[in-house]
Amino acid sequence: MTDKLWYGGDYNPEQWPREVWDSDVRLMQRAGVTVATVGVFSWARLEPRDGEFDFAWLDDLMDLLDSHGIRVDLATATASPPVWLARKHPEMLPVTADGVRLGVGSRQHYNPSSSAYRRHAARLVRELAARYGTHPALEAWHINNEYGCHVSRDYSEESAAAFRVWLERRYGTVEALNAAWGTAFWSQAYGAFDQVGVPAAMPTYPNPGQLLDFDRFSSDALLECYLAEKEILRELSPDVPVTTNFMGFLKGIDYWSWAPHVDFVSDDCYPDPADPDSAPFGALARDLMRSLGGGAPWILMEQSPSAVNWRAVNAPKSPGMHRLHSLQAVARGADGIMQFQWRAGRAGAESFHAGMLPHGGEDTRVFRETVQLGEELASLADVRGTRCDARVAMIMDWDSWWALEQEARPASLDYVRVLAGWYRELWSRNVLVDLVRPTSDLSSYAAVLAPATFVLSAEGSANLAAFVEGGGQLLVGYQSGIVDERLHVHLGGYLGGLRDVLGVWIEEFAPPAPGSLSGTPAPALRISGLGEGGASTFAEVVRVSDAEVLATFTGPQPHGGLLDGRPALTRRRSGAGAGWYLATQPDNFGAVLDAVLEAAGVVGVEAPAGVEVVRRGDRTFVLNHNDHAVELTLAGEPLALPARDALII
Amino acid sequence: MTDKLWYGGDYNPEQWPREVWDSDVRLMQRAGVTVATVGVFSWARLEPRDGEFDFAWLDDLMDLLDSHGIRVDLATATASPPVWLARKHPEMLPVTADGVRLGVGSRQHYNPSSSAYRRHAARLVRELAARYGTHPALEAWHINNEYGCHVSRDYSEESAAAFRVWLERRYGTVEALNAAWGTAFWSQAYGAFDQVGVPAAMPTYPNPGQLLDFDRFSSDALLECYLAEKEILRELSPDVPVTTNFMGFLKGIDYWSWAPHVDFVSDDCYPDPADPDSAPFGALARDLMRSLGGGAPWILMEQSPSAVNWRAVNAPKSPGMHRLHSLQAVARGADGIMQFQWRAGRAGAESFHAGMLPHGGEDTRVFRETVQLGEELASLADVRGTRCDARVAMIMDWDSWWALEQEARPASLDYVRVLAGWYRELWSRNVLVDLVRPTSDLSSYAAVLAPATFVLSAEGSANLAAFVEGGGQLLVGYQSGIVDERLHVHLGGYLGGLRDVLGVWIEEFAPPAPGSLSGTPAPALRISGLGEGGASTFAEVVRVSDAEVLATFTGPQPHGGLLDGRPALTRRRSGAGAGWYLATQPDNFGAVLDAVLEAAGVVGVEAPAGVEVVRRGDRTFVLNHNDHAVELTLAGEPLALPARDALII
Amino acid sequence: MTDKLWYGGDYNPEQWPREVWDSDVRLMQRAGVTVATVGVFSWARLEPRDGEFDFAWLDDLMDLLDSHGIRVDLATATASPPVWLARKHPEMLPVTADGVRLGVGSRQHYNPSSSAYRRHAARLVRELAARYGTHPALEAWHINNEYGCHVSRDYSEESAAAFRVWLERRYGTVEALNAAWGTAFWSQAYGAFDQVGVPAAMPTYPNPGQLLDFDRFSSDALLECYLAEKEILRELSPDVPVTTNFMGFLKGIDYWSWAPHVDFVSDDCYPDPADPDSAPFGALARDLMRSLGGGAPWILMEQSPSAVNWRAVNAPKSPGMHRLHSLQAVARGADGIMQFQWRAGRAGAESFHAGMLPHGGEDTRVFRETVQLGEELASLADVRGTRCDARVAMIMDWDSWWALEQEARPASLDYVRVLAGWYRELWSRNVLVDLVRPTSDLSSYAAVLAPATFVLSAEGSANLAAFVEGGGQLLVGYQSGIVDERLHVHLGGYLGGLRDVLGVWIEEFAPPAPGSLSGTPAPALRISGLGEGGASTFAEVVRVSDAEVLATFTGPQPHGGLLDGRPALTRRRSGAGAGWYLATQPDNFGAVLDAVLEAAGVVGVEAPAGVEVVRRGDRTFVLNHNDHAVELTLAGEPLALPARDALII
Repeated sequence: MTDKLWYGGDYNPEQWPREVWDSDVRLMQRAGVTVATVGVFSWARLEPRDGEFDFAWLDDLMDLLDSHGIRVDLATATASPPVWLARKHPEMLPVTADGVRLGVGSRQHYNPSSSAYRRHAARLVRELAARYGTHPALEAWHINNEYGCHVSRDYSEESAAAFRVWLERRYGTVEALNAAWGTAFWSQAYGAFDQVGVPAAMPTYPNPGQLLDFDRFSSDALLECYLAEKEILRELSPDVPVTTNFMGFLKGIDYWSWAPHVDFVSDDCYPDPADPDSAPFGALARDLMRSLGGGAPWILMEQSPSAVNWRAVNAPKSPGMHRLHSLQAVARGADGIMQFQWRAGRAGAESFHAGMLPHGGEDTRVFRETVQLGEELASLADVRGTRCDARVAMIMDWDSWWALEQEARPASLDYVRVLAGWYRELWSRNVLVDLVRPTSDLSSYAAVLAPATFVLSAEGSANLAAFVEGGGQLLVGYQSGIVDERLHVHLGGYLGGLRDVLGVWIEEFAPPAPGSLSGTPAPALRISGLGEGGASTFAEVVRVSDAEVLATFTGPQPHGGLLDGRPALTRRRSGAGAGWYLATQPDNFGAVLDAVLEAAGVVGVEAPAGVEVVRRGDRTFVLNHNDHAVELTLAGEPLALPARDALII
Repeated sequence: MTDKLWYGGDYNPEQWPREVWDSDVRLMQRAGVTVATVGVFSWARLEPRDGEFDFAWLDDLMDLLDSHGIRVDLATATASPPVWLARKHPEMLPVTADGVRLGVGSRQHYNPSSSAYRRHAARLVRELAARYGTHPALEAWHINNEYGCHVSRDYSEESAAAFRVWLERRYGTVEALNAAWGTAFWSQAYGAFDQVGVPAAMPTYPNPGQLLDFDRFSSDALLECYLAEKEILRELSPDVPVTTNFMGFLKGIDYWSWAPHVDFVSDDCYPDPADPDSAPFGALARDLMRSLGGGAPWILMEQSPSAVNWRAVNAPKSPGMHRLHSLQAVARGADGIMQFQWRAGRAGAESFHAGMLPHGGEDTRVFRETVQLGEELASLADVRGTRCDARVAMIMDWDSWWALEQEARPASLDYVRVLAGWYRELWSRNVLVDLVRPTSDLSSYAAVLAPATFVLSAEGSANLAAFVEGGGQLLVGYQSGIVDERLHVHLGGYLGGLRDVLGVWIEEFAPPAPGSLSGTPAPALRISGLGEGGASTFAEVVRVSDAEVLATFTGPQPHGGLLDGRPALTRRRSGAGAGWYLATQPDNFGAVLDAVLEAAGVVGVEAPAGVEVVRRGDRTFVLNHNDHAVELTLAGEPLALPARDALII
Repeated sequence: MTDKLWYGGDYNPEQWPREVWDSDVRLMQRAGVTVATVGVFSWARLEPRDGEFDFAWLDDLMDLLDSHGIRVDLATATASPPVWLARKHPEMLPVTADGVRLGVGSRQHYNPSSSAYRRHAARLVRELAARYGTHPALEAWHINNEYGCHVSRDYSEESAAAFRVWLERRYGTVEALNAAWGTAFWSQAYGAFDQVGVPAAMPTYPNPGQLLDFDRFSSDALLECYLAEKEILRELSPDVPVTTNFMGFLKGIDYWSWAPHVDFVSDDCYPDPADPDSAPFGALARDLMRSLGGGAPWILMEQSPSAVNWRAVNAPKSPGMHRLHSLQAVARGADGIMQFQWRAGRAGAESFHAGMLPHGGEDTRVFRETVQLGEELASLADVRGTRCDARVAMIMDWDSWWALEQEARPASLDYVRVLAGWYRELWSRNVLVDLVRPTSDLSSYAAVLAPATFVLSAEGSANLAAFVEGGGQLLVGYQSGIVDERLHVHLGGYLGGLRDVLGVWIEEFAPPAPGSLSGTPAPALRISGLGEGGASTFAEVVRVSDAEVLATFTGPQPHGGLLDGRPALTRRRSGAGAGWYLATQPDNFGAVLDAVLEAAGVVGVEAPAGVEVVRRGDRTFVLNHNDHAVELTLAGEPLALPARDALII
């Protein structure tokens, strides 16, 4: 195992003549590369025909890297099945909700529940593990690649059969399934499990329970693929850690259920360089990764050295930006900074994706930055293994994401956008936050934020209530606790088991809606009190049973005054703790947050706008994301930072 | 039969435990509920397995309602077939134009021409009719539900076969079909009926005649479903009236052809509470329902007590708004005000649709309004059976709707939007209007309006011409009389048989078009004379043979002056009658309308903007839709009305 | 053969009663019609049942036209197969990328690779050629119609088989195919040709090489259809010229590969009358047609006498506009002006498309303009055969079009919009331009422009470099020479073989991109120096090896100053010639163009904005496209032109 930070990238030398390889390892050494990810898209090369394996080139490559001191993150190569397999087993190809069977010619063309795919993948992994499981260059196993990136939902017959098995395991009886899904509505009752199907195209809104269970099943089906490979690796290569690269906020996969099964978390992250919010949004993804691993170090497994190739317009990273994003990851717990890919491709679908070594070669800005970053990461090696300490947690839960974004909801809310809006305010205060689930252990936090936590089980409610009763500050946002884990409405005023601890209930929803026929814009909301000013997105009619009202909606409001004088923000104290309820999204959310943080005794770090300060271990990272120089005072010390520059103290 | 106004809603107690039922009937009594619609989505419960029926729960429910004095509008439950039926007969599932077979899991998943669906539906109806046909609680039969709401066009093989039968019945010979459809163009001639198909996906614009006939056939196919059920009910339950709930301006179904077959018209109506035009647009739908029934009282069968769940953002109804919409329906001929649904659902696709009894229970604004409305409707019982009297008619014709909105037209016009634009001006003058077809009996009207009556048969023209010659005022709008009922162009200047009575012909069309490559906005039109000011949407080059020119287009105009000085509005007097032609949509359409109404001797009721005044029987309804109080004088009496309040005199 | 200019249109009398025909020929004579295109959509009429032919009506028609001195452009009628053929051979119907088989009921419902379609088409053509190949009225053969207009890409099994044959012919071995397509990326290697398929729906971006070859194959598949018909006509009607009507900038077909196979080029052209740029965009299409034929006269085979029917809103042509567009075509090399269609249709999908003889009949503006244009064209008969002389060429290349507009590119550029932007400046200077390919003979040009010439082969580069070395001025625009003809990136700084002659290389791309999450607009670019001012669309980081810098990007720029001070425009002189490189699209592109033209010694004609001056043979056409009168001086002579009027000197 290396004792350095990982630095390097995906390396696909099978796409280049052999003489290029020697140039590659020489330049990798110059760039301080410590680890290369190999074999991600090599299945067709490793097994050119059914059951015929060719490892000679990979033997050569592994030895070449080893002899140059570059360690290998070896992929199992199952992410992109070879053409011959799809031709032999066309039933393994994915099917869309409209019944279109997707073809070969791109990548990830497999139905996760396909037995043919799983069988052939297992055979390949067994061969690889047997051959390289003890290779001296082997640093880690990299199972598959970006699971669910393109195909996370499959509507084939084989998936339908697997879904039925999954449902029978979950519910035991079809009566239980009917009760959970509420099939009495719209005459949807099933007489037996074999009548159940996947939620493919239908005349109108599908059953919500069916949809949510299909989301859960689909995440689990991919997890089964992962676990099947992992089991083989464990058997044949027991001492080498195993991971698969996550993709940040990927709706298709519930990473909470995956994280216990990776030896370390790793992530692919591609913020848009043109986005002014790329820094806070990147930080949110890094915090998620750290949280998934329970605070343990993780690896940034892919990022682009500059532009990507899949946006409508692909901006390059500004000079220095790639270093900032990399240091941001280290500051927030990463022990490795990997890129896609080492050498920019010459052909294929990603040939306009930046590489550490660009099309233009060594005399380029990007390659110079590649070398500089290698040097800096080498100097940071002793950050390995250190941790970050967060006193605030924010709930991030795939069930709520999936359920909130179904159709036929009170309003079309974007779950991640809501979270990111709250997070941005935490980030701008340099308050470190962990992501948690409603049922997570909250004992180490002083404050917990729950934006749009639409799905709330009895266990989740109890856990959150106990947190307040234990002295914590809990801020619950609109559209939380609306349904239970079966998507049954919490009757009697929503909020489920939180009603007592919050001291409020919700009478009705009053989102500011644009007029559908006349196209009039949605009317403005206004609130007075804490966080006063405009508000948007959503509003609820709150009824107070036992709480202070800290802010109210003030007229003139939409809906004929329905909201006038109603609570916008409430608090119910419970000893040292308190339950806060926020019924809308104030433009001045920061004021609400400040009040919660103050009550929790959480203090951030003051810094100019756009300057990120993070503490990891005994180092403090100061990152100036601005296009201008800044001056600040940190721990009493005045500091000056040029545009897009960083300081590590 | 009840002698009260209907008041109540869809009641789906099969979704709730039995103990809730008792609470329901108690609360229904408190709310003044007189009728409950039962069984709409109960097929799977009534027939859990093929041919096995379970009526015990419905027996219980019918008796429970009966014992509490609540009458039953009993649905035939055929709207949402059970899963077992679809699994047994997958060919009954609908197919889209792209060939996608829609699945179970939502509702209305049947192809209207499916023999398996029809056969099983008939068996269920026969069972229901035999069992409940003489039940003392039975007020009416409610066949199916919202026919064509989601699936009004089906492209399956079974539909294609039915379409061929329908065509052969219509045309007799394939030569007649070829002539009607103009298949000589684009080499589309059919050699036999069995070569004809449905207009599924094709390389470019389908044959217009094929499209229109498929629209007609599809409406008829659903009507056949209705009639098959009705025949059984007539046989087994001869004294109980039968209806099916229409859906206002539903493009898929020509309600004119359906209306003679219902014993009373009923309607589902869901205006957007956030839409400032919800009042006039709702009024238009109510007038359509009254007109479909030839002026007879009708039932508002569904409306939402507050928000729905299927818009992108679902606004609640403002306080008082639900009462206003209900009284608007009564004023315009309704003998009943029903809601979807009694109790807000706990699970399923519509659990966020408001109920008369909300999730929050009795201590809620919505339930209080439910109770108040029940009281008010009870006091209005003697309005039952009274009628409204309209002296103005407006043409509303599905053929024109279908044909005008085909592709490959002079311009993309929205038929209902054009109608609604004209109607809004009538509504704001409190002039009651009936909707009619071109061939309707017009003898009771002083003025007839014909906006965008694109399809005009010789019979229709003759009827309208006779109306003018009999002393009526006829206002014809642009894009009227362009084609006949086979969609053959009326050669020689369009307008068909109206050319003489209008004294004009149309030389060419000159819609103000935006520049397609450069994206320049459409240029403004201007007119001088009657209704002077701006104009939009469409314009035509009018040639006058024998008419007065009341308004002209004035330069500078688009199209290089093509319209300059051309007639925008003409009139040809014919004794006491006159034919008016309007070649564009003036912003100041009201001035044109005023002139026509004055000539017709029609006088509305003056009232402040947003105040609706309607007379039914000997009552006058005054509805203030504004968010502010108003004062007005009615029949010499000064009145004051608070915001969103109503007065019945 | 006629010695007049062609004037007339598509004539479809089979859609009208026989008595209308006599009226038609009488009115054609009045309108100066010289040629009628007959039979385009007559297959079903000519062969009403499989193998049963009916030519009686066409005999009658040919003789009728002949007896009135109207010559015939006889279509082979294969553009719209009869229904019976599709019913007999459903496999001939096209299939979309999503697997939807398109149906009959519109037109062009055939898969170009269908053997059934080709076999039946050949039989029909043989019958027609045998019968009419020597008819005295026959002026030309018109093969099929608008090839590829609706269906240029087909994803059926039969097309896949043909694609495999095409690939094997192109590559010889599957190894060569794998190398060309770069299938090592994403594990896409093929083991044999029979594993290759068409690029139908797949999980994400298809292989770029597969896509481009499918584009090339699809164009070739249609060309095979054309050539099969042509071979029969050559055999049976050897002396009659053959054409097929092109469609201007049709992405689906590479007309450069087709043009050598037509005896004369013909084109269908439908600029939007509402578009202020319809004149320059029309001119560009005409110049393409002249260039495809190597400068030989061509026929404008279809244009609309006024409005079309397939835009969202269809503007009529302003008075005089149709004449201007017609004369523009003559000025730019057309020997004929044909319309779709002679008589406006009464039924069918195009019944709202204008005709030379409108629905309104003879007493209409459009028919009057029809007659006037006929008179004017008669007076211009001696322009036939004369040529235009262009000293400037612009590259227009389907490979670059197809490749640049694939997904996963540095930015989403619209190839034709880029070309049109450059062309507009040439047009406004009245500089005539030929369209060429990179490998065309450039010896007659003083300047060559290469906008976004994304694909550049070694031969293309060498040809362009030789042009500069021979004294020419070459202006190369951004995103040129990025890849070779296999879409392999030109490593080492892009530009391929042009690097030396331009003296620059490209380090990276820096398009101004909007922020994806926050929706911020794309930031502005600015340049100083030649063409100073704003810039847009794209920018590149240029490295100079041996060139003058004529303009630079000036801060503040996007991307953190990445572009600041970098070259925006460079020039490398090479004797009398020079290679110019333009790294962005300046708003003031005209200044750059002026410098290039001046260096090339090319002088346009000064005229007021919107006035087009073109010289053909010894005539000069002066066309005032403005809605206002202009005065100008031409060859020292003062001229005055009314709005939308023309002068031929």
